[in-house]
Amino acid sequence: MVKKWERLNSEYLGDFRIFRARADNSRSPRTGNVHRFFVLETPDWVNIIPLTPEGNVVMIHQYRHGTEEITLEVPGGMVDEEDGDPAVSAARELREETGYEATEVIHLGSVAPNPAFLDNRCHSYLARDARHVTGMKLDGAEDIAFTEIPLAEIPDLISNGTITHSLTIDAFYFLELYQRRNNQ
Amino acid sequence: MVKKWERLNSEYLGDFRIFRARADNSRSPRTGNVHRFFVLETPDWVNIIPLTPEGNVVMIHQYRHGTEEITLEVPGGMVDEEDGDPAVSAARELREETGYEATEVIHLGSVAPNPAFLDNRCHSYLARDARHVTGMKLDGAEDIAFTEIPLAEIPDLISNGTITHSLTIDAFYFLELYQRRNNQ
Repeated sequence: MVKKWERLNSEYLGDFRIFRARADNSRSPRTGNVHRFFVLETPDWVNIIPLTPEGNVVMIHQYRHGTEEITLEVPGGMVDEEDGDPAVSAARELREETGYEATEVIHLGSVAPNPAFLDNRCHSYLARDARHVTGMKLDGAEDIAFTEIPLAEIPDLISNGTITHSLTIDAFYFLELYQRRNNQ
Repeated sequence: MVKKWERLNSEYLGDFRIFRARADNSRSPRTGNVHRFFVLETPDWVNIIPLTPEGNVVMIHQYRHGTEEITLEVPGGMVDEEDGDPAVSAARELREETGYEATEVIHLGSVAPNPAFLDNRCHSYLARDARHVTGMKLDGAEDIAFTEIPLAEIPDLISNGTITHSLTIDAFYFLELYQRRNNQ
């Protein structure tokens, strides 16, 4: 049986704005030996699938600095503690990144983006009856353009590699499982 | 239209064994302003869904130091350049972490684990006819126990939050899409 490791001590390595890097020395319950692990502390994230009354998903094109590529994703971002509830953060990101608002925001599921070295969760939501009501509100480091895509086309866009963001793909699987449970 | 940013210069912040941390100063094509972004350079990753002749998935329980939890995942790890092909890395991780081997390894899809700050891809594979043939080969920093779970139970384990690893969930969605395309 796999057991928890004992974290003996930690050292902070640096603060990279959205991350705080930490090194932990932890003892293996199997061998008793101590190993060093690298962990990034970061707030929870959210993403949201905005579904219009016509059955389209509102998606965004965005330049991403990790892969240095323009991606096709659903809106999302970091949970702001001031929001109180990740669902509020998700609706805020939707509004800021696309100018859409929804009548109902439903939690679809949550994942550990990478339990090996990230300490956070990413929560996925469905925004029902999303409608374009206002302008976008981007900060200077964001370049975003939104587009509507029929929900029925999403599986092909995942299969053919047009949609690559792991967390966006998780959100769409959660939506399929949600619709299957609710016979939609 | 969203355009690429120009990366003006980069600074290496540290080497954390599995990551090399970098800060980039890049110019926005929209505003002309320069912003600083944090990027982790890391090898590609692989994961693999081992499916037995009986229709079970071989999954592993593993202690994860980011979330400090024991997770339920499919086998996986980092691509070793010496392997030559990520499919070989996937089969190697399967053998090392579970002692199973497969007659056929099929590429299901690839994701960007986090295009915002990681530069890599994660490739998902299906291992057909996986059979337990040898002992596990764990390094001292690994604690792993494997278990077989009927494939038909996986969607419920994702819906109810038993399986939380984002990349494992992506792999299972890729498998569903693969089976749907092939009418299996």
